[in-house]
Amino acid sequence: MIKVGIYGASGYMGGEALRILREHPEVEILWATSRSGKDIAEVHRNFFGADISLVEPSDNLAPCDVVFIAAPSGIAMDAAAKFLAQGAKVIDLGADFRLKEQGIWERIYGKAHTHWDLAAEAVYGIPEFSREKIRSARLIANPGCFSSAAIFGLAPLLKSGLIESEHIIVDGISGTAGAGAELNITMHHPEIGNNIVPYNVVDHRHSYEMEQELGKLTKEKLAIHFTPCYIPITRGILATCHAFPKKKVDRKALLDLYRDFYADEFFIKVFDLPKEPGASWQYKPYPWVAATSGTNFCHIGLDVDAARGRIVVFSALDSIGKGGAHAAVQNMNLLFNLPETTGLSRYGSHPY
Amino acid sequence: MIKVGIYGASGYMGGEALRILREHPEVEILWATSRSGKDIAEVHRNFFGADISLVEPSDNLAPCDVVFIAAPSGIAMDAAAKFLAQGAKVIDLGADFRLKEQGIWERIYGKAHTHWDLAAEAVYGIPEFSREKIRSARLIANPGCFSSAAIFGLAPLLKSGLIESEHIIVDGISGTAGAGAELNITMHHPEIGNNIVPYNVVDHRHSYEMEQELGKLTKEKLAIHFTPCYIPITRGILATCHAFPKKKVDRKALLDLYRDFYADEFFIKVFDLPKEPGASWQYKPYPWVAATSGTNFCHIGLDVDAARGRIVVFSALDSIGKGGAHAAVQNMNLLFNLPETTGLSRYGSHPY
Amino acid sequence: MIKVGIYGASGYMGGEALRILREHPEVEILWATSRSGKDIAEVHRNFFGADISLVEPSDNLAPCDVVFIAAPSGIAMDAAAKFLAQGAKVIDLGADFRLKEQGIWERIYGKAHTHWDLAAEAVYGIPEFSREKIRSARLIANPGCFSSAAIFGLAPLLKSGLIESEHIIVDGISGTAGAGAELNITMHHPEIGNNIVPYNVVDHRHSYEMEQELGKLTKEKLAIHFTPCYIPITRGILATCHAFPKKKVDRKALLDLYRDFYADEFFIKVFDLPKEPGASWQYKPYPWVAATSGTNFCHIGLDVDAARGRIVVFSALDSIGKGGAHAAVQNMNLLFNLPETTGLSRYGSHPY
Amino acid sequence: MIKVGIYGASGYMGGEALRILREHPEVEILWATSRSGKDIAEVHRNFFGADISLVEPSDNLAPCDVVFIAAPSGIAMDAAAKFLAQGAKVIDLGADFRLKEQGIWERIYGKAHTHWDLAAEAVYGIPEFSREKIRSARLIANPGCFSSAAIFGLAPLLKSGLIESEHIIVDGISGTAGAGAELNITMHHPEIGNNIVPYNVVDHRHSYEMEQELGKLTKEKLAIHFTPCYIPITRGILATCHAFPKKKVDRKALLDLYRDFYADEFFIKVFDLPKEPGASWQYKPYPWVAATSGTNFCHIGLDVDAARGRIVVFSALDSIGKGGAHAAVQNMNLLFNLPETTGLSRYGSHPY
Repeated sequence: MIKVGIYGASGYMGGEALRILREHPEVEILWATSRSGKDIAEVHRNFFGADISLVEPSDNLAPCDVVFIAAPSGIAMDAAAKFLAQGAKVIDLGADFRLKEQGIWERIYGKAHTHWDLAAEAVYGIPEFSREKIRSARLIANPGCFSSAAIFGLAPLLKSGLIESEHIIVDGISGTAGAGAELNITMHHPEIGNNIVPYNVVDHRHSYEMEQELGKLTKEKLAIHFTPCYIPITRGILATCHAFPKKKVDRKALLDLYRDFYADEFFIKVFDLPKEPGASWQYKPYPWVAATSGTNFCHIGLDVDAARGRIVVFSALDSIGKGGAHAAVQNMNLLFNLPETTGLSRYGSHPY
Repeated sequence: MIKVGIYGASGYMGGEALRILREHPEVEILWATSRSGKDIAEVHRNFFGADISLVEPSDNLAPCDVVFIAAPSGIAMDAAAKFLAQGAKVIDLGADFRLKEQGIWERIYGKAHTHWDLAAEAVYGIPEFSREKIRSARLIANPGCFSSAAIFGLAPLLKSGLIESEHIIVDGISGTAGAGAELNITMHHPEIGNNIVPYNVVDHRHSYEMEQELGKLTKEKLAIHFTPCYIPITRGILATCHAFPKKKVDRKALLDLYRDFYADEFFIKVFDLPKEPGASWQYKPYPWVAATSGTNFCHIGLDVDAARGRIVVFSALDSIGKGGAHAAVQNMNLLFNLPETTGLSRYGSHPY
Repeated sequence: MIKVGIYGASGYMGGEALRILREHPEVEILWATSRSGKDIAEVHRNFFGADISLVEPSDNLAPCDVVFIAAPSGIAMDAAAKFLAQGAKVIDLGADFRLKEQGIWERIYGKAHTHWDLAAEAVYGIPEFSREKIRSARLIANPGCFSSAAIFGLAPLLKSGLIESEHIIVDGISGTAGAGAELNITMHHPEIGNNIVPYNVVDHRHSYEMEQELGKLTKEKLAIHFTPCYIPITRGILATCHAFPKKKVDRKALLDLYRDFYADEFFIKVFDLPKEPGASWQYKPYPWVAATSGTNFCHIGLDVDAARGRIVVFSALDSIGKGGAHAAVQNMNLLFNLPETTGLSRYGSHPY
Repeated sequence: MIKVGIYGASGYMGGEALRILREHPEVEILWATSRSGKDIAEVHRNFFGADISLVEPSDNLAPCDVVFIAAPSGIAMDAAAKFLAQGAKVIDLGADFRLKEQGIWERIYGKAHTHWDLAAEAVYGIPEFSREKIRSARLIANPGCFSSAAIFGLAPLLKSGLIESEHIIVDGISGTAGAGAELNITMHHPEIGNNIVPYNVVDHRHSYEMEQELGKLTKEKLAIHFTPCYIPITRGILATCHAFPKKKVDRKALLDLYRDFYADEFFIKVFDLPKEPGASWQYKPYPWVAATSGTNFCHIGLDVDAARGRIVVFSALDSIGKGGAHAAVQNMNLLFNLPETTGLSRYGSHPY
């Protein structure tokens, strides 16, 4: 059994990690921390009656094989250093180790990085693209939710060289779980209940992750123009990716490209449903985020505007599923040479 | 492995049964039917890419150890007879076998019952109350969702003889999954999106199930006054049960009663959180339905108005979870002498 | 023109008062206060670009004919005394002047009342029941939202003596606007988005208002057993009122009673739609809260369970409409001898 | 008084027209039609108890000064011809007269146009851009909701020549009112309740309106790449418009441009709130759709990604408000030489 610690289990991301790790057949959870001192049922009512104790973070936590960190910037980077020094592997669900340029990181996160050597060492943890590096890593930087969605949606296009790489637009729509458990006026139900709330609409931190990782697939200059907003659903994000093709391409050819690209990837589903004139909306061939909620699946669909010359790709996933804690467990499976689907194979529910 | 058939898998209830049975470690699904002839991904997009084929119902379906039926009244009763004749056990998720008085059944369901002998034979399938009968049954009538919620909420009060049994009020609030997949104007999003919609507000069919089953716990005359409404959440129901105590009782004593009553029941969680003046709402000691969504748990909490003389009990569950398909799998576990929690132990997610 | 001040315009109730008073043809708003010092568009984005300035409360506010107070307990009672001393009439949208027993008020609001003489003088402001008293009052205690809903729903039954007066149950369902603009975890969207949250489930403060006002209609001992919960809609409340008839009564007779009772009341609409077996849900004869949102209407519908002996009455209104700021303007119209519908006649929108 | 007829009042658009025209001080509604033969309260419960009768369409409808048509394609074009022949002015809320190229219209609407002379004559009715033409028109083609939003958002950029005109992306997010009152599976609450549903994602019909009207502002070749989706709010749409500047520009300069452009337009509000690092989300300087619901306002905000070279403009309005029935009434005010704000000046509510 893999001995696991969860450093920061009172938020949504840490709570989801706790939930799926409890059911992982190869995992034994040694501890889960919370700074609040609250009982588990006060922060996660879904666990009422479960045999789980949250402990306060301290220097006396039992040594683990792997520690999942779901903590604010700064706390996470120091904690990771400590756990690595104890010989544990570390999967950081936050942003401390995702970028490879210190100057950019320190500017956009607004603080000094105390362990840049670790950021340099960390593997950006998208299993579908970095399987081998992850297997041999000590430290995994689990990707941002929108970063994962956009990278899955755009990778085939950039790899193939089909599109203009400086005019890529990504519109993100996020459920409110992505905003975290901390109260703020934007997430107050009377405000968001019938609303759409754009935020960080230019130069979003996740833009840099997208550019860093997608940049590995092309030699051309790359710019990802990303704009997110919150809507009143709880879980799930949709990245709508627009790109301009260098030459004519049709939907069928693009679906072939995507199917080939992800042919061996269990968790990436390419929606190749037919697009029939007059068919009811039920059969429309684009992904719906609800179908991915609570899972490690990413649903991808696309279309082409032949007359105007544009490709649109939809990438849907759960921000704390494939965009967070579930992907982190997939990374753990790689770290410990388990089948990637271990503990992650459950399909979504309907309705969600 | 238990060979399972799902007769009617295109609706929400049958789809949920399919989902959790696929992951049940002792189950092999032989077939799942749909009259529509549609592909699985058209009716349940959560299953896109999964290796599932829906077949049309016919006389050539492979024999099973147990068949789950999720079909309209009339279709279900005939199908059950057929599968029983083939030697299969049957768990009916609909209403055809829930009541023990033919006159009542035929009046409230508005049709003749073609196999009343089977209705008479069927065991009303609440595992917590009928474990032994279920183990030896051929035919299980899985309870209505509101019936389950109300029965769990009121059973300890009726068993103890503490309350006036003719003045019991149950207000039900239901998510829209309870209305099923068939289109109607009330479930059209622009109508229900900011709305509360009462329906079947007196003499609801589930009232008879509640009275039948709770009537076994008391010798007094019993009346359950039940009124439901729909609200714009997808899954989950809350039954708010009001009763008038025959003599003074306080919250602590009632919580003791409920804890004792459900002490051995893994899936029934009695919310005994403290009720502290001034505490933030987070600590309020009543169940929240979201915590039970997608699970086989029922969360129960309560309070007492000492001055006016009233008890209020909250019972929350998922209408297609503990109020439906998950409870049906719990029944199957009993039928085949498996631990009741097999395939059902996953806690809910947070947020939902 | 009536010179109006709004004391506390940054919350939802004060903001709604501001909105409808701006369009009232006989009103001139002299000032609207906010302790926050924020610009109007920061607290009420709907007013972006409107010519409105929020001022900080002070002793130099211009004298008015009438002041609407939407402020926390304690602040309101002192402010009311000050404005009355200046010769203004006062309409308090809070709870400081609603109850007539000082002991009860001080116990349930947890503080000493500094101006009980004013509480004794204040008229409980339901225009439909206290028209004449309101016309000649100096100080109006605007009712609680649930109090209004329950009183409108139950008054005909209590006046007629038809029901047992000690077994009246009122289940309240509220949109989140009723919780106010202050942040708390229960209103955080990820928590409430798919949830039902019971709160103050026994001995709720509004119970005392209901008992006080409905008690005037009967000589029998009265108990209102009230339990509210929040659901994820923004505006609107539904009070589901259950009562046990002393003798047999049918739906038609009750509808006649209600229609007669409210025959002259423009703002109280009795839903007397037919109840036809087999009719689609669209025609179901019960009120939907969405139809009352943003208005001064209360929609009332009902039904009778003849076999079990129960009456159920639904009363729907907007907690900051007929249950708040709109009713306050109706009271103002009475205070200044205007037609009651002045500035209030707009019907709701569809969809809401 | 202007004598008004509403041809097609049972849908959401016609119902909203009916609602605001009833309160218009210069309007007398002579009739409102519905083919269903249903009572007003069955299709619009908000009007329960109001003195409104829906009549079936016929040749005996009383002559009017102006007729609002809210009917399906084909029905509308024939009806418009008939009313114009009777001497009435016509405002068509549908799409029959919006485009100026018959070939395009017939291709994208899939039918022959029976009165193309009228389409040629019709004025595309955006008051802010075509005031004088509207005043002297007989027939107004009221714009599509997304068309209005995109045109308001992009006009200043195209007029100024600041942007590349072939790489304009518009992502649209719509509430479900935009889908209309007819049932379909996508709008079934269990499906859409926690979902995001892209539809008509390329070559959307509204693209042609945007290109036609915005094309008047530039001599360059223009392409609007438009992709909409539905989310679970009822009213309101947000158009997120992305464009690439030809040369460097900053947020301040762009806000100046927009403020100047719309300086005289009461209904177009340019959100020029400061963008302060560290400020709470409450102060974020972008529009929220909820603030425009139920109104004739369009809220516009913007930002610039200086490093990557991109402009993003947000345009929020209510699809049946400024994007539909309210704009139609503004057009009517112009047709009859009334102040444009007559009957339209009410600000939105908070919360919505």
